[in-house]
Amino acid sequence: MEKVKMILDCDTGHDDAIALMVAARHPQIDLLGVTVVAGNQVLEKTLPNTLSVCQHLNLDVPVYGGMSKPMVRDQITAGDIHGKSGLDGPVFEPLVREAEKKHAVNFIIDTLMESDGDITLVPVGPLTNIAMAIRLQPAITKKIRRIVLMGGAVGLGNCTPAAEFNIYADPEAAHVVLTSGVPIVMMPLDLTNTALADMKIIERMEAIGNRAGKLFGDIMRFTLKSQALNGLSAGPVHDVTAVTYLVVPEIYHTKDMHVDVELDKGLGYGRTICDVNDRYHAEKNVTVGLSLDLDKFWDLVEETLRRHE
Amino acid sequence: MEKVKMILDCDTGHDDAIALMVAARHPQIDLLGVTVVAGNQVLEKTLPNTLSVCQHLNLDVPVYGGMSKPMVRDQITAGDIHGKSGLDGPVFEPLVREAEKKHAVNFIIDTLMESDGDITLVPVGPLTNIAMAIRLQPAITKKIRRIVLMGGAVGLGNCTPAAEFNIYADPEAAHVVLTSGVPIVMMPLDLTNTALADMKIIERMEAIGNRAGKLFGDIMRFTLKSQALNGLSAGPVHDVTAVTYLVVPEIYHTKDMHVDVELDKGLGYGRTICDVNDRYHAEKNVTVGLSLDLDKFWDLVEETLRRHE
Amino acid sequence: MEKVKMILDCDTGHDDAIALMVAARHPQIDLLGVTVVAGNQVLEKTLPNTLSVCQHLNLDVPVYGGMSKPMVRDQITAGDIHGKSGLDGPVFEPLVREAEKKHAVNFIIDTLMESDGDITLVPVGPLTNIAMAIRLQPAITKKIRRIVLMGGAVGLGNCTPAAEFNIYADPEAAHVVLTSGVPIVMMPLDLTNTALADMKIIERMEAIGNRAGKLFGDIMRFTLKSQALNGLSAGPVHDVTAVTYLVVPEIYHTKDMHVDVELDKGLGYGRTICDVNDRYHAEKNVTVGLSLDLDKFWDLVEETLRRHE
Amino acid sequence: MEKVKMILDCDTGHDDAIALMVAARHPQIDLLGVTVVAGNQVLEKTLPNTLSVCQHLNLDVPVYGGMSKPMVRDQITAGDIHGKSGLDGPVFEPLVREAEKKHAVNFIIDTLMESDGDITLVPVGPLTNIAMAIRLQPAITKKIRRIVLMGGAVGLGNCTPAAEFNIYADPEAAHVVLTSGVPIVMMPLDLTNTALADMKIIERMEAIGNRAGKLFGDIMRFTLKSQALNGLSAGPVHDVTAVTYLVVPEIYHTKDMHVDVELDKGLGYGRTICDVNDRYHAEKNVTVGLSLDLDKFWDLVEETLRRHE
Repeated sequence: MEKVKMILDCDTGHDDAIALMVAARHPQIDLLGVTVVAGNQVLEKTLPNTLSVCQHLNLDVPVYGGMSKPMVRDQITAGDIHGKSGLDGPVFEPLVREAEKKHAVNFIIDTLMESDGDITLVPVGPLTNIAMAIRLQPAITKKIRRIVLMGGAVGLGNCTPAAEFNIYADPEAAHVVLTSGVPIVMMPLDLTNTALADMKIIERMEAIGNRAGKLFGDIMRFTLKSQALNGLSAGPVHDVTAVTYLVVPEIYHTKDMHVDVELDKGLGYGRTICDVNDRYHAEKNVTVGLSLDLDKFWDLVEETLRRHE
Repeated sequence: MEKVKMILDCDTGHDDAIALMVAARHPQIDLLGVTVVAGNQVLEKTLPNTLSVCQHLNLDVPVYGGMSKPMVRDQITAGDIHGKSGLDGPVFEPLVREAEKKHAVNFIIDTLMESDGDITLVPVGPLTNIAMAIRLQPAITKKIRRIVLMGGAVGLGNCTPAAEFNIYADPEAAHVVLTSGVPIVMMPLDLTNTALADMKIIERMEAIGNRAGKLFGDIMRFTLKSQALNGLSAGPVHDVTAVTYLVVPEIYHTKDMHVDVELDKGLGYGRTICDVNDRYHAEKNVTVGLSLDLDKFWDLVEETLRRHE
Repeated sequence: MEKVKMILDCDTGHDDAIALMVAARHPQIDLLGVTVVAGNQVLEKTLPNTLSVCQHLNLDVPVYGGMSKPMVRDQITAGDIHGKSGLDGPVFEPLVREAEKKHAVNFIIDTLMESDGDITLVPVGPLTNIAMAIRLQPAITKKIRRIVLMGGAVGLGNCTPAAEFNIYADPEAAHVVLTSGVPIVMMPLDLTNTALADMKIIERMEAIGNRAGKLFGDIMRFTLKSQALNGLSAGPVHDVTAVTYLVVPEIYHTKDMHVDVELDKGLGYGRTICDVNDRYHAEKNVTVGLSLDLDKFWDLVEETLRRHE
Repeated sequence: MEKVKMILDCDTGHDDAIALMVAARHPQIDLLGVTVVAGNQVLEKTLPNTLSVCQHLNLDVPVYGGMSKPMVRDQITAGDIHGKSGLDGPVFEPLVREAEKKHAVNFIIDTLMESDGDITLVPVGPLTNIAMAIRLQPAITKKIRRIVLMGGAVGLGNCTPAAEFNIYADPEAAHVVLTSGVPIVMMPLDLTNTALADMKIIERMEAIGNRAGKLFGDIMRFTLKSQALNGLSAGPVHDVTAVTYLVVPEIYHTKDMHVDVELDKGLGYGRTICDVNDRYHAEKNVTVGLSLDLDKFWDLVEETLRRHE
C-alpha cells in the first residue's frame, strides 16, 4: 500500500502534539509538512510548541508558521483548557529548531499546486490557514485529495452550547472550507469526546519507555488534572482521530450529510449545522465520523508511538 | 392530593388529541379550558379538530380559538406530518360543538388574573397564545404557577437540522416565554422522540374497548403509516409527555439549565440553545426533560383512557 | 367635506402632546380615541402624561392604556430627550382624569371591527399597539382605511446611526405593520427633522393667548433647552406632521416605495430600509413623506391651537 | 513637495480606468503598482481590462492579479453597470502586456514591509486584496501610511437600498480594513455621486486631443448611455475622487467618524454604518468625504490627462 501524503495543520495544543506524534511516525503516512495556526493559543505560542515537540522527538518534518488571526472575527483562544503556554504540562529543552521562512498558507498553496492531487490536508485547529489558501489560490481545490478535519459538533458544542472551539474560533474560514467543493471528512466532538485517555491508557503509553510515550504521559496527565476539576477521570485526544482516519478508515462509522456553519452573530454563531436527517435535501458535502472502534484506535496509537526513538 | 389546575394550549394535531384525552380525564387534573393556536395546521383546521375530539369523546371543557398567525415571522405548518386536515386518520361526526366567543389570549389572561396563582399552562404547539398573553398583560407572569411545554431540542431539530417545529413556527414567541421569568419545564424532542407508540401499544389501547381507545388507534395508525415511509415502525406522542409530567414528575429525569432561542434568521433560526454544560453561567430558567420511565408512562396513558366513556 | 375619523396612538412625549392638541381640535378631524404605548418613557409615565394634557386642555376624548413592553425585544426609552417624566417642562394640575378600563389593543380592534372601514390610525410612537391588534385580530387589516405613522428614516437614524427611535424601540412590531397589506403613509426623520419650531414659532403660538398656546410654549421651550446642548436653536415637532397629513396631504411631497425593517440584531437593527430607487423591484407598500410646505404647516398648527379654550 | 507613493487597487471598470489615468501621470503621485481584484467583473476580465488601459496609454507601471473571489461571501459582479467585459465602450488593441507573476496580495505585503511606512493604498474596488494582505501579514498595518478608499454610503446604497457595491461585494473584507487601526479616508457614494461627467465635461476632455482624452470620452460616453436609461444626462467617476484626494485634500470637505459594516445577512448586509452624529461614542476610525470642489476637481483631471502622450 502506498503511503498517504498529508500536511498536518495544527494549533499545538495537547491533543495536537499527540496527533503530530502519530502523523510523523506512522509507516503508512508521508508527513510533508506541519503548518501552524493560532487557535488554542496565539501563534506566538502554538508555533514554538509545535517546534518543541519536533525538536524533542527529533522529527525532521518542516514546520511553517501561518495565520495569527481569524479571517474576519475577533480572536479567541482556549487558555482555560490548554494553559498559559498552550501546551502546559511537558517541560521541553530550550528551543533551537526554527520554523521555515515561508508562510504556511504559501507552503500549502505551492505544495498542492506542484502535486499530483494526492495530498490530504489534516487541519485539527481553526480552519484559517486552509481557507486563506483556498481563497488566495482557488485552483488548489482541484488539487486537494481531501480534507480530514477535527472540528464541529452534531450535538452540543464545547465552546458555547452551540459551537465547537475550532469552528467557533473562525466560523468564516469553516464556511469557506465547507463550501469549497473539496471532499471533506469531519471528526466532530460527538466522536472525539469518546476517544478518551484514562490513567490506564496513559500508563500503557508510558510503559513503551521511549520519549514519545513519556511525552504522551506528560501531556495527558496535565489534561487529566483539568478534567478532574469537572469530575472527569479521562481526557479526549480529539485531533488524533483525524490523523488515524487516513490509515484505518474502516474502524470508523460515518455518515454523509450536508454540513454548513452558522455565520449570524446570535447564540448559534459558529455552530456546524449537520443535516443528519437530510431535511434540506442539499448536497452531502461532508462525511461525518459518528463513532470509532476505540480498542483498535489505541492499538494504532501505541504501535505508532513505539516507532519513535 | 389536590388536583392540578391546567389550561391546555394546543394545535390539534395527532399527539395533541391524545394529550387532550389524558388531560381531560386524568383524576388528578382539573382541565380549566383548551386554547387553540395555529401550528400543525392553520387555525381554521386546528380549532375544528380540537372541537371534534371534544364532541367525539363528550368532553365538556370550554375551547377557545386563539392566534391564527405567529407573532412576527411568516406562517409555516406541518401538513406533511399531520395531513391536509391537520388530524388525518380518524373520521368524526359532523361538528356541532362550538368554540367559546372569547379569544384564547383573553381567556388565558382573565383566568390567570382571577386565579390564586395555582394554574399551570401546558402549551404543546407554537407558543404564540402564551407569549401574546404575557405581552398584553405582563402581570400574568406572577400568576402562572408554571409552564410545562412540549417543544425545542437539545440535539437535532425535526423541522430544520437545528430547530424543532413548535419553536421554529414562532421563535419570537418562544423567546418571550423563555425570558418571562415564569418557571418553565420543557419536554424537548430528545425526550418526546422516545415516547413511541408501536403496534403493540396501539392494540393495547384499542383493547380498552371504548371510544378513547379506538380514537387513539385511529390516530396512531395514521401516524404509523407516515412513519413507515421513513422505515420506522412506531410513532412518537410528543405532546402527551408534557401533560403527564403534571401528575407523575417523578418518572422523568430532568436537568435545570439556561435555554434561549436563536432569533437570527440564519441556519439556526428557531433553535433552542440549551446550555447543558453551563457554558454561559446564565440563569437556569428551564427544567429540561431528559428521559422518562416509558412503562409507567404508557400505564398512565392506558389508565386514563379507560376513564373515558 | 367629511371629517377624517382617526385614532391617535402615542407615547406622550413632547411632540406627541402637540400632535394631540392638533388632532383634538382640528375641525376636519374626528378623534375617536387616544391609545397610549410605552416609548419615549414607560407606560406608567406616557399614560398619565397623555391624561394630563387632556385634562389641562379639557379634551373629552377617551384615553386607553396599551402595551407596556415591545413585542419581542428588550425595552428602551428616550429619557435623554424627553426627561425623567417623559414630558418634562410643563407643570400640570394634579391628575384626576382616568384612562378607560379597556386595553388600547382591544379598543383598536373593537372600534375597527364595528366601523365601516373609514378609520385612519395615526401611530406616532413605537408600533406595538398597532401590531398587537393586527396579530390578535387579523381581520382589522381590511377595516383600517390607512395608517399614517411617524417613524423611520431614509437617511440617518437618531437612536443609532441606522435606526430611528420609534422603529428601534419595537422593530418586530414595525415589521408586522409594514407587511400587513394596509396602506401606509410614513413621516420619516428626514422630513420631521425639518418641522422645526424656533423661538419665533414658540412666541407666535404663545401669542394666541390660550392654554394650548401656552402649553405649546412650555413644551417647546424645554425641547429647545435640550437642543441648545447640541448647539441647535430649534426643535422638531415630529409627530405633528403625521396628524396634519390627514387634512392637508397636498402640502407634502411624497414618494411610494418598498419599505421594510432590519430585524437582524447587528448594527442595522431597527433600520427602515427604504427602497427609494426601487432596487428590489418589490411592492411599493409605503408612501414616504419627503418634504412639506412648512409655512402652511405652521399656519395650520396655529389655527388649530386657536380653537382650543 | 515630495511625491505621494501609492498603490492603486482596482477592478477596472469605467471609473477605475480614469482613476488609473490620473494616478499614473499626476506629477505629485508616484504610482508603485496596480493591483487588481474581482469586483465590477470577474478577475478574468478586470485584470485584462487594467492591462489594456496600461498598454493603450503606454503606462509602464507593474500590474498584479489578485483575489478572484470575496473572502467569505458568494461572488457578485456589476455587469449591469459596466457591461459584459466590465469595461464596455472603448475598443482596445489585442492585449500583449502581461501581469506580473507575483500575486497582488504578496506584492502589497512585500512592498509595504520593505517600505519606510510612506505608502498610501488606494482601493477603489472591493477590499478583498487589502483585507487578505492585512490578515496574512498583520505587521503591514504599521507600515501603511493610510488607506484612501472609494466605497460605502452615508445615505442610500446603489447595490441594495442599504449597501454600496464595493462594500456589498465583500463586507467581511471591509470589516477587516475598517477595524485594522490604519488611518482611513473614505469617499462614499454621497460624495462620488456628485462627481458627474456630463457631455460638456466629456467634450472638454476629448478636446485635449491625446489618447487619454479620447479614452476618457469612450469610457464616459458608454456610461452616459447606461445613465440615459434612467433618465440621467451625466455619469459619476466615483473612483477618481479617491486618487485626487491624495494631492488636493484641501478641495474636500470631510468629517471624522466611526464607521463599521453590517455583517448580518439581513436587509442591511454590507451597509456602512456611518456614525455621523457620534451616537456610539466610538473611536472615529474614518475620515469621510462629504463634498468636494468640483471645478477644481475637473481642472485637476484635465491637467493630468494632458500629461499623457
